[in-house]
Amino acid sequence: MDFQSYLEAHRARFREELFSLIRIPSISSDSAHKADMTACAERWRELLLAAGVDRAEVLPTSTSPVVFAEKILDASYPTVLVYGHYDVMPVEPLELWKTSPFEPVIENDILYARGADDDKGQSFLQLKAFEYALKERLLRCNVKFIIEGGEEIGSPGVAEFCRENKELLRADIMLVSDTSMVGAEMPSITTGLRGLAYWQIEVTGPNHDLHSGIFGGAVANPVNVLCKLIAGMTDADGHITLPGFYDDVENVSPQERAMLAAVPYDEEKYKANIGVQALCGEKGYTTLERTAIRPTFDVCGIWGGYTGEGAKTVLPSKAFAKISCRLVPHQNHEKIAQMMIDHLRRIAPAGVQIEITSMHGGESYVCPIDLPAYKAAEKGYEEAFGKRPLAVRRGGSIPIIAVFEKELGIKSILMGFGLESDATHSPNENMPLDIMRKGIKAIIGFYKHFGK
Amino acid sequence: MDFQSYLEAHRARFREELFSLIRIPSISSDSAHKADMTACAERWRELLLAAGVDRAEVLPTSTSPVVFAEKILDASYPTVLVYGHYDVMPVEPLELWKTSPFEPVIENDILYARGADDDKGQSFLQLKAFEYALKERLLRCNVKFIIEGGEEIGSPGVAEFCRENKELLRADIMLVSDTSMVGAEMPSITTGLRGLAYWQIEVTGPNHDLHSGIFGGAVANPVNVLCKLIAGMTDADGHITLPGFYDDVENVSPQERAMLAAVPYDEEKYKANIGVQALCGEKGYTTLERTAIRPTFDVCGIWGGYTGEGAKTVLPSKAFAKISCRLVPHQNHEKIAQMMIDHLRRIAPAGVQIEITSMHGGESYVCPIDLPAYKAAEKGYEEAFGKRPLAVRRGGSIPIIAVFEKELGIKSILMGFGLESDATHSPNENMPLDIMRKGIKAIIGFYKHFGK
Repeated sequence: MDFQSYLEAHRARFREELFSLIRIPSISSDSAHKADMTACAERWRELLLAAGVDRAEVLPTSTSPVVFAEKILDASYPTVLVYGHYDVMPVEPLELWKTSPFEPVIENDILYARGADDDKGQSFLQLKAFEYALKERLLRCNVKFIIEGGEEIGSPGVAEFCRENKELLRADIMLVSDTSMVGAEMPSITTGLRGLAYWQIEVTGPNHDLHSGIFGGAVANPVNVLCKLIAGMTDADGHITLPGFYDDVENVSPQERAMLAAVPYDEEKYKANIGVQALCGEKGYTTLERTAIRPTFDVCGIWGGYTGEGAKTVLPSKAFAKISCRLVPHQNHEKIAQMMIDHLRRIAPAGVQIEITSMHGGESYVCPIDLPAYKAAEKGYEEAFGKRPLAVRRGGSIPIIAVFEKELGIKSILMGFGLESDATHSPNENMPLDIMRKGIKAIIGFYKHFGK
Repeated sequence: MDFQSYLEAHRARFREELFSLIRIPSISSDSAHKADMTACAERWRELLLAAGVDRAEVLPTSTSPVVFAEKILDASYPTVLVYGHYDVMPVEPLELWKTSPFEPVIENDILYARGADDDKGQSFLQLKAFEYALKERLLRCNVKFIIEGGEEIGSPGVAEFCRENKELLRADIMLVSDTSMVGAEMPSITTGLRGLAYWQIEVTGPNHDLHSGIFGGAVANPVNVLCKLIAGMTDADGHITLPGFYDDVENVSPQERAMLAAVPYDEEKYKANIGVQALCGEKGYTTLERTAIRPTFDVCGIWGGYTGEGAKTVLPSKAFAKISCRLVPHQNHEKIAQMMIDHLRRIAPAGVQIEITSMHGGESYVCPIDLPAYKAAEKGYEEAFGKRPLAVRRGGSIPIIAVFEKELGIKSILMGFGLESDATHSPNENMPLDIMRKGIKAIIGFYKHFGK
């Protein structure tokens, strides 16, 4: 049966299966959702078994469980390890969602829900491509799955799980659908990912909120101080001022910069899509370079003092921020994390106390485009989208990819199908069903061209 | 009957009356408490009538109602207008309160509650001093009361009420208990108050929260921008950089600076009280000067992006701050408010949109110490506390005092009895009962020495 007919015959079941994953609010950063993590892993196990694997298990890690499954066709075949994650980002601010985040809705052939793309939707494409390839006897490789529950918080238990289960996870290449393409009409494969360092800062001034009239002017205001610390981390040219920050940054070759410059990019459309009048960033680099090959400093959240209605004249006791840096090849995330901590502690003024916690982090990743598996993926995209995919570096981070390379010694092919308009990590996350169909076809194409 | 005996005879009633005011959560900045405002005004009307005024009325303004009352003894007597406010500050952060903010608790002869000092407690001292002075036939002046419900949000309806009710409010001097003293053993009368300007800023970057990996580096982050704007408002010497900000600042005479320097001040105790290791502020000025005769720039609240548990890698769409400046004599709060708005709009980078709203504000105030009413107040303190009170400028703001001066043409005597440890505007607001007793005695002393 050709794929189109198979899809039509099983459309209702496919939909119900994906919806059942989405409906479980598996938010890994919120400990209140612990039971949902296990429920979502269990649901994945059922779906993997139904798709035809030989075995599927929910295995414990130091944090959320991972789902492992395998279909061994022939010991002489190469093995593909499919990676995905069943956890999702928090959904705040809830009031900006047009639909309920955990109740999937299809409108104009677009699926709306938290996880519609990242990564329940995309992982599901892998599952369905495997199901079809197996049923149609297209596979000339063995297939293993590892679906984890902590990607959005830095995959805390997975590195250890890999170290302790090297034989179980042994494979020749990893296949991951958790990245995005340049555009719906411009398919692309991600060949580089940025790393990440993430901190929470707590600045404490006086031991309680003070009357800003009585004490104002003589006592360090922790919000003022925090703003100074953050403002001082970048200069007027958009360079990051943390001493030593650029020491290990990869010097990208003129050839690679030329390749990036060849990626079609419509600045007016890019700006209109996110609703800004002007773009800005590090001096001397283009927008695509700023988001792919250069590191960043972004505040992800800030809070302190009175945030209610009206005007409360208070000199707050505390101020908090969550800050992050995207990193590029050769920057070590643990070294950067410690540098930031040491630096902020050193420059904090005497009137406040400062606590900085390093949260999750990860290394950057680069994939060579001459691997046979990359070539197979390229052909898959071409068959599904009618165009040869571009090879591009992207700005996001999947820290665990670098961990797999280090622990298991294998490269990953990032067959992602997201679009900028998918609003991953944001309200109204979505994924067009047409792209999902093409994504499954592209992965089936990979299986056709990969293996013995 | 001497005051001590009167107090003992009526202690339970006094307590129940004050508690009945405190139990009404009259938070003026929160529109959810509209009905509480009216209830609190009504309760004041009952208590004023019970204390012996000829008439008491709850009168509407454009916002919360004011309570007006009067006791006219003789048309030839001078008239005192007592001002107080029945509204209170919000109570957040609630988790830092040791007791419920609107359920008064007395522990170790200290009353704990929101409004225990500011200004339910202090206004109540005026009421009870009037009651005793009237009953004991000590009054040689007429007494009017105006108790308003919007002081904590800048008294929005009261200026207009004054303009429209000049005859009703006609008086020779105003008496206000809404300030604090240097210390329990160091009584003082406030002879100067700072003014206030207060703004809310909203910085909008992209039209929705973005994935910080995909967009980070190329899109202005509104939290980063807000931090830069705030950080740029002060320089390394603690000077405010808003162009023109200091143009009208009063040049305080060496004599007045010497008087301030004579105020007893224990830096170690001051620091220990608020739990900081070091004080800081504008270069070239002492702590007492920084809090009394110099303007300030303080962030009262800030928020934006992800503020929940864990690490969400987001480039936020919006960032907000509530910022304030304490002002000093000759600085016009409306002029400063507009200067700030123009300045921030001018310097905001192209990648964001900025909205700034001026919230409440007020002029500073200075009271001459040769007024007969000031002399009467001085004697009152001396009789109650056993020491001649210091005349000091304080850092807080009661914007309406400057409005009364402008609209009614009268000066105010600030017979305040607060202490730094009272935690006004903060969790665990309190007032020692001993200070309350002495406060009533001091006001009775004022009545003894003031008037015909």
